[in-house]
Amino acid sequence: MDPAVTRTHTDDGRALLLYGRHAPVPARSPAAPRATPTLERRFDELRGEEVIFASGRQGRVHLPDLAGCPLCPARPDGGHGEIPVRSFEIAVFENRSPAFAPGATGGACEVVVYTDEHEGSFATLAPERAEDLMWVWRDRYAELGARSDVAYVMPFENRGVEVGVTLHHPHGQIYAFPFLPPVAVAEREADERRGGCTPCALAAAELTDGRRVVHSGEATVAFVPYAARWPYEVHVVLREHRPSLLDCSAGELRDLAAALQAVTRGYDALFDRPFPYMLCVHQAPTDGRGDGHLHVEFYPPLRSAKRFKHLAGCEQGAGVFLNDTLPEHTAAELRDAIARAG
Amino acid sequence: MDPAVTRTHTDDGRALLLYGRHAPVPARSPAAPRATPTLERRFDELRGEEVIFASGRQGRVHLPDLAGCPLCPARPDGGHGEIPVRSFEIAVFENRSPAFAPGATGGACEVVVYTDEHEGSFATLAPERAEDLMWVWRDRYAELGARSDVAYVMPFENRGVEVGVTLHHPHGQIYAFPFLPPVAVAEREADERRGGCTPCALAAAELTDGRRVVHSGEATVAFVPYAARWPYEVHVVLREHRPSLLDCSAGELRDLAAALQAVTRGYDALFDRPFPYMLCVHQAPTDGRGDGHLHVEFYPPLRSAKRFKHLAGCEQGAGVFLNDTLPEHTAAELRDAIARAG
Repeated sequence: MDPAVTRTHTDDGRALLLYGRHAPVPARSPAAPRATPTLERRFDELRGEEVIFASGRQGRVHLPDLAGCPLCPARPDGGHGEIPVRSFEIAVFENRSPAFAPGATGGACEVVVYTDEHEGSFATLAPERAEDLMWVWRDRYAELGARSDVAYVMPFENRGVEVGVTLHHPHGQIYAFPFLPPVAVAEREADERRGGCTPCALAAAELTDGRRVVHSGEATVAFVPYAARWPYEVHVVLREHRPSLLDCSAGELRDLAAALQAVTRGYDALFDRPFPYMLCVHQAPTDGRGDGHLHVEFYPPLRSAKRFKHLAGCEQGAGVFLNDTLPEHTAAELRDAIARAG
Repeated sequence: MDPAVTRTHTDDGRALLLYGRHAPVPARSPAAPRATPTLERRFDELRGEEVIFASGRQGRVHLPDLAGCPLCPARPDGGHGEIPVRSFEIAVFENRSPAFAPGATGGACEVVVYTDEHEGSFATLAPERAEDLMWVWRDRYAELGARSDVAYVMPFENRGVEVGVTLHHPHGQIYAFPFLPPVAVAEREADERRGGCTPCALAAAELTDGRRVVHSGEATVAFVPYAARWPYEVHVVLREHRPSLLDCSAGELRDLAAALQAVTRGYDALFDRPFPYMLCVHQAPTDGRGDGHLHVEFYPPLRSAKRFKHLAGCEQGAGVFLNDTLPEHTAAELRDAIARAG
């Protein structure tokens, strides 16, 4: 993809980026400057972690019907949600109810709309569109990561009402954290403890073992990790050491998109139902502190077709995950489902 | 309570302890030795944490009706679930589907049945029974904590199907971990970082500030923490430095039980519905590594009467909690609800 981008704004003045082809942007009066969102960052002394308070989010739009979808393109009568054009490929805009924002906590929250079609999912995108999305993530990583108030950029997707999705239109998000979040700290500590790149070592071990590999691409490998916390957890890892999307070749980005689509299609085939998941893209911090290795982690909350993996007392109160399945077994199921979904 | 205890066993040979008064234990043939459960502990290199694999739990009993309740006392015809006596006060037995067990991972998992009455909840127990429960927790902490394969003992309760409860009969659990779990490590690190007891300091600060205090007892204080991760999170803390239940006076245990019941009754009054929560009792490690301060943490998954706080991409993928409410506001709501529930 040529990441050609048109920079415009939502009606209320938030940045709106249109990647790829799109219908003309209508002339609109310039938006009034927005008020800085009410956000607060507090340090939890007991757990040693930052907590973000975003009371403006409580009233956010919840599962509107098609006519009220804020992610759909403009209607023939010119009425529109967040995006005032009649058609587009991929759109990115600043979140209306952010958890991070300049002037408040620092950092940024963006929404990434994968398509102007309301129905479908990441899994059903045309392969070229999924590939384009990799380039958009890459561009956002570069631009957000260059900011002095951003330490870590995480593209992610919450898929399904089971994980709290409030809009059905296919989309993901990008959080640009003003500090290094605990999971990124843990990954850096892992590299220090082991004296080398942990995702490199784990991917090599999974390829050698083979029992937990669910998909094998030229540039990527997907597996249920040896110590998976979720029954159907999958990690998609670049085979070569690639700190971020910026370090990948065009071929690697294409292969990554194909691997992510293979996994999500396999998920939907597994129980023949839309499969809820969280997808999180882990890369190197952008504040220069520590290396990293591009990989995508999927956390699906199901432990069977109808049963959820709840995070309860043991996980929340002690920080210990209990997994009622064995990675070798769930990987075999997933491998079959991915092959079936082809 | 005189923690008088009768030691017997379930039909399949797991330890069963009857605390307080109970009907006679019927003569039964000695149970055959149980097979060691299939459990595995694996280290997640990337997160730096232990994960427990307990594939035997996948088939566990799920929300049986009253007639099939394994926690009810024996019926007139002698038929029974886990507990073969016609009446009891508090019963403790080894979990049929444990996450930790001697011979496998080390450690232990116990079920604590609060009453022989199927209906009700911790909040509706007679105050004396809630107080007795503190003595039972105390006794289990002492006995399990004395074992060489136990490093940390956590009594807890998952309340409500929303947090994955599989049995309605009022009960909690105790996990005796064979290692120091991450949350206990974080609490020890907090004490090291701050150079003193963190719960002592936080409780004192909350009492001074006052805005987040929801219940004040002679020996305890309950508050929504300054950096609460859950909208209606509450911590109940002993005012004096008490590493564990073993360090408490009888009066303190009585006051703790009263505080826990005040909070849970307030929860149920808040939205006039049974309020789901996780309740976790944090105490000093039993392996001698580090101090601790007895406190009880409640994590309720609701953010309004009908909306859930989902742990999604930001929490699971980055380890950062987003709270859509302000502790000062939710504390005011809870304080009113607790006063109302009286």
